[in-house]
Amino acid sequence: MKLLRVGTAGAERPALLDAEGVLRDLSGVVPDIDGALLADDAALGRIRTAAEAGELPALDAAGLRVGPPLARIGKVVCIGLNYHDHARETGAEPPAEPVIFFKAADTVVGPHDTVLVPRGSVKTDWEVELAVVIGRTARYLGSREEALGHVAGYAVAHDVSEREFQIERGGTWDKGKNCETFNPLGPWLVTADEVPDPQALGLRLWVNGELRQDGSTADQIFSVAEVVRYVSQFMTLYPGDVINTGTPAGVALGMPEPKPFLRAGDVVELEVEGLGRQRQVFAAG
Amino acid sequence: MKLLRVGTAGAERPALLDAEGVLRDLSGVVPDIDGALLADDAALGRIRTAAEAGELPALDAAGLRVGPPLARIGKVVCIGLNYHDHARETGAEPPAEPVIFFKAADTVVGPHDTVLVPRGSVKTDWEVELAVVIGRTARYLGSREEALGHVAGYAVAHDVSEREFQIERGGTWDKGKNCETFNPLGPWLVTADEVPDPQALGLRLWVNGELRQDGSTADQIFSVAEVVRYVSQFMTLYPGDVINTGTPAGVALGMPEPKPFLRAGDVVELEVEGLGRQRQVFAAG
Repeated sequence: MKLLRVGTAGAERPALLDAEGVLRDLSGVVPDIDGALLADDAALGRIRTAAEAGELPALDAAGLRVGPPLARIGKVVCIGLNYHDHARETGAEPPAEPVIFFKAADTVVGPHDTVLVPRGSVKTDWEVELAVVIGRTARYLGSREEALGHVAGYAVAHDVSEREFQIERGGTWDKGKNCETFNPLGPWLVTADEVPDPQALGLRLWVNGELRQDGSTADQIFSVAEVVRYVSQFMTLYPGDVINTGTPAGVALGMPEPKPFLRAGDVVELEVEGLGRQRQVFAAG
Repeated sequence: MKLLRVGTAGAERPALLDAEGVLRDLSGVVPDIDGALLADDAALGRIRTAAEAGELPALDAAGLRVGPPLARIGKVVCIGLNYHDHARETGAEPPAEPVIFFKAADTVVGPHDTVLVPRGSVKTDWEVELAVVIGRTARYLGSREEALGHVAGYAVAHDVSEREFQIERGGTWDKGKNCETFNPLGPWLVTADEVPDPQALGLRLWVNGELRQDGSTADQIFSVAEVVRYVSQFMTLYPGDVINTGTPAGVALGMPEPKPFLRAGDVVELEVEGLGRQRQVFAAG
């Protein structure tokens, strides 16, 4: 299923995009799309049954804002340098084990919302990523197979990054990853049953119409299953947590000088195969 | 005021510790203690008025668990190496600007709850800290004076840390800071009006009765006001966010070999002057 949330920011209603591409209202079936829903097989079953029975009212998509497809996100765990080609372009050795950093859940916005270039920023950069949404509490998982059983679904994430804040201002990467609006998510949360192989998804990103990233999750150093297993050794993952699994090559940081960092007015579009497409206009923060 | 939350985990009720040390029930006045309350001057005024009028029923404190004094925490921003003496003991240069890392809000537990030593951990360490609780949305604050106006109150935080995960396992410090139960908070949220000078507070921590940390916020490299101002340049702070402002000298990491890292059965007690005292028994995770 393709689950989403539509409406004004903070007042989204749950919806489903059906197989014919018609937007369907879920607000009569479930209160919202969040970790509690994803952990509730009965509620997910009610959505499936209502959809198959044709009982969900159509919504007029015209002019409707799409919000992030998940409410009440707990934490956003991010994996750094997780593609061979991206590690190469940044001059880093492929990490021996996953690199973990954090984005606060309050950085998450809808897939087409405005993204703010922070004040004083000269190195705002893009990163298309496959986001994993957790559906079951995960502690010290014993295997990759077990790990995949804790994944509720997948979404497109834009891990917007300020490289000066991230790398040149002391401390950890978090300083350049948590500016307001820095994590567009969606448009859809695609349930895991519709993503048979998360290691075979194309990822692409364009800046002002020019293709900048064109990768595949096949190039990930640590697979989705391994990332979920690994992270669960260091922290507990809860339903409604999100893991951004890293970005392929093609970011501004990896390009020759003068690097084309983002400015107000730039337009970024990005997609992950089967998970939909985002488009953001950047504006002054 | 000293605000707190008492009862079983996940079902705490709001309470107030009055000037005579009597625990008073706030559940008839406000639904909970969270960011929404801290941003609501009228609701805080109702608590104050009811307390002064003697209208709040006493609660029997006997056997009552104390939870974290704040519900629905958004994010926990942490400042690293923020005491001159702690920077020295770890062999680090005093940072030129604040070092930022993150703890997930789901690591927060009550001040006397059990803390879990993670599986595979050999370097679990203690850190007594002054926590700052945000009461007003803070973006690009212009001055330290303005910053203090965004602080709702203060609490004791225990920034429990796994040093091998933090330093030796690749990536950022977050990997050793986000294990389950790693952020005891409380017992009280002391409103800012009762903390006239946050740079004059003693902090102490004992392990199995032995004094290990004995510092003062006077030794902070970056003051509370500067930390709040600084962080607001890189991310937006919301009511109910918490900033752990760093730890003074005396952690296990800074001691000679064999360093006395924590094990199941160890008891840690910690206090910040005027903000109350915590006590945790450590157990196997």
